[in-house]
Amino acid sequence: MPFRHVAIIGLGLLGGSIGLAVQQALPGTQTSGFDLDPASRARARDRGLVGSVAETAAAAVAGADLVIFCVPVGAMAAAAASVAGALAPGALVSDVGSSKLTVARALAEALPGAAIIPAHPVAGTENSGPDAGFASLFRQRWCIITPPADASLAQLTALSQFWEALGANVEVMTAEHHDLVLAVTSHLPHLIAYTIVGTASDLEAVTRSEVIKYSAGGFRDFTRIAASDPTMWRDVFLSNRDAVLDMLQRFTEDLTELQKAIRKGDGETLFEHFTRTRAIRRSIIAEGQDDARPNFGRGEQAEA
Amino acid sequence: MPFRHVAIIGLGLLGGSIGLAVQQALPGTQTSGFDLDPASRARARDRGLVGSVAETAAAAVAGADLVIFCVPVGAMAAAAASVAGALAPGALVSDVGSSKLTVARALAEALPGAAIIPAHPVAGTENSGPDAGFASLFRQRWCIITPPADASLAQLTALSQFWEALGANVEVMTAEHHDLVLAVTSHLPHLIAYTIVGTASDLEAVTRSEVIKYSAGGFRDFTRIAASDPTMWRDVFLSNRDAVLDMLQRFTEDLTELQKAIRKGDGETLFEHFTRTRAIRRSIIAEGQDDARPNFGRGEQAEA
Ligand SMILES: NC(=O)c1ccc[n+]([C@@H]2O[C@H](COP(=O)([O-])OP(=O)(O)OC[C@H]3O[C@@H](n4cnc5c(N)ncnc54)[C@H](OP(=O)(O)O)[C@@H]3O)[C@@H](O)[C@H]2O)c1
Ligand SMILES: NC(=O)c1ccc[n+]([C@@H]2O[C@H](COP(=O)([O-])OP(=O)(O)OC[C@H]3O[C@@H](n4cnc5c(N)ncnc54)[C@H](OP(=O)(O)O)[C@@H]3O)[C@@H](O)[C@H]2O)c1
Repeated sequence: MPFRHVAIIGLGLLGGSIGLAVQQALPGTQTSGFDLDPASRARARDRGLVGSVAETAAAAVAGADLVIFCVPVGAMAAAAASVAGALAPGALVSDVGSSKLTVARALAEALPGAAIIPAHPVAGTENSGPDAGFASLFRQRWCIITPPADASLAQLTALSQFWEALGANVEVMTAEHHDLVLAVTSHLPHLIAYTIVGTASDLEAVTRSEVIKYSAGGFRDFTRIAASDPTMWRDVFLSNRDAVLDMLQRFTEDLTELQKAIRKGDGETLFEHFTRTRAIRRSIIAEGQDDARPNFGRGEQAEA
Repeated sequence: MPFRHVAIIGLGLLGGSIGLAVQQALPGTQTSGFDLDPASRARARDRGLVGSVAETAAAAVAGADLVIFCVPVGAMAAAAASVAGALAPGALVSDVGSSKLTVARALAEALPGAAIIPAHPVAGTENSGPDAGFASLFRQRWCIITPPADASLAQLTALSQFWEALGANVEVMTAEHHDLVLAVTSHLPHLIAYTIVGTASDLEAVTRSEVIKYSAGGFRDFTRIAASDPTMWRDVFLSNRDAVLDMLQRFTEDLTELQKAIRKGDGETLFEHFTRTRAIRRSIIAEGQDDARPNFGRGEQAEA
């Protein structure tokens, strides 16, 4: 393996999963970590998320040849500043933040002169914190690496091999393109889900208990991602603002078209649109990015 | 059991599931059925969805004391007309349509003088057709019954017991209220999901293959319901137009507020909104309406 010692800053869902995955897939690699929250450090020790949990960020990165920041996007600057001066010579700095342009900028400003290659594993759950991580999170998922123009090819290769060892497929693109792609595949869906769950909670004519009771009609699918961590998502929307607003604009235009069709009783337009959207689900399943079983293979289906 | 012979018109996901569930839960009850599509009738015979598959709707309902229409909402009038004159005296007519006001009207017009109590089991998957049904579909799900004001209490009780025997919990409400509740818990979520999947398919800057690859970031959750049957959903939106447009209006207003917050960089508003929406997921899980496991307990988690 290209790295002998991996340090993880932030031991929540992502940091914890990386720590567990490295210990499982790369048993010869040393792992250390730090989290700002003392309770999370204690839990990380109990669960053995990394080989050693340090009491400061600087202590965690000492001697590490790969340092990965796994904190909310808005906390990247502070987390990076907390290890400035403590990095081992030649260490590679990376992260897992869900937006890349602003994170790349924050890391570069806080760690001038350091070798930095940002990345984003497109893998997660709606849970967060030191109890949420698990070693198989990255298996069969994509990890997007967004090297700056002056990145070293050797370090890019090493980082790719690292993620592949954890079970991920690697794709390389610019930070700009990443932010556009994720705006549509992740950020807009979360924004929409958060919105509709809020709308449903605020009705007078339909009680909240009715919304919950009849949620199996479709609504429950949206509540899962609308239960994701508020800090993480606030930061994502603030940091990837332009791409999110662009996608939102397109979504709103499309919604207005369907609204018009419903108002006019134009069944043909509705039917044509609904037929078109079926194909994409089939491709997602064919490419192993979702479960083929009905209802996502939810527990209830097991009894079927 | 209050019914000796149940006839099912339309042998797709809902009709097939009812047929299988009755044979499993009420082995003493006779079942017969009909589907307009000869291929579906053949599949229904192969799978044994009902005890006997008839070659006409009139033959299927002969002698039945409960007739359930399981066809798309827009086909209810034609399906009901196809059994006019063939119903046994005293037979109860019901259905499973996803909207209730227009269906109640269509059934009453096609079958003047018949005893009609519409119903809607809030249970389904994204699949349709004679291969999609399974006996446990209604277990732990709610079935909403919307009796007209002059319905017989004895028949309402019998229909409630029927659905309870299939594993459902029963709730009684007016057709008007049903249509409002389902507009928010089912129809709006489907409309939104169909829209966003369309938006993502039409981008120039992001390819369709990228959308598929990185769909695990959240987008894939929406593609499931956007793969639902186009005929069924066209009919639902056309038949429940007013309630859907009302909910859509509220949703759009809420979305505009979050859009403004993103544009202004107002993190507090975003954080407050995202915190509020978490609670509803917990209630849905506590009430057994969804799987508590991360990512809906999708197959991939089983390896964790
Ligand atoms: N969740 C997902 O599905 C997902 C998927 C892909 C990428 N990501 C990205 O991964 C990153 C982490 O997300 P997550 O889901 O793992 O979040 P998480 O479970 O909340 O973990 C983040 C941890 O970082 C800690 N932290 C915050 N500031 C810190 C600092 N300056 N130094 C050290 N630790 C600090 C937090 O402690 P406190 O609780 O005390 O703040 C928390 O324990 C985010 O950038 C997110 O965008 C998330
Ligand atoms: N899917 C869900 O999740 C769900 C949940 C709750 C309620 N519902 C409601 O249940 C009803 C059925 O939905 P489904 O999902 O079971 O649909 P489905 O799988 O497509 O089955 C409907 C069947 O009815 C047949 N049909 C159409 N017109 C007919 C007629 N006049 N006479 C006899 N058969 C006819 C169709 O045949 P052709 O293919 O030849 O048209 C099809 O085989 C709809 O009203 C829907 O709103 C659906």
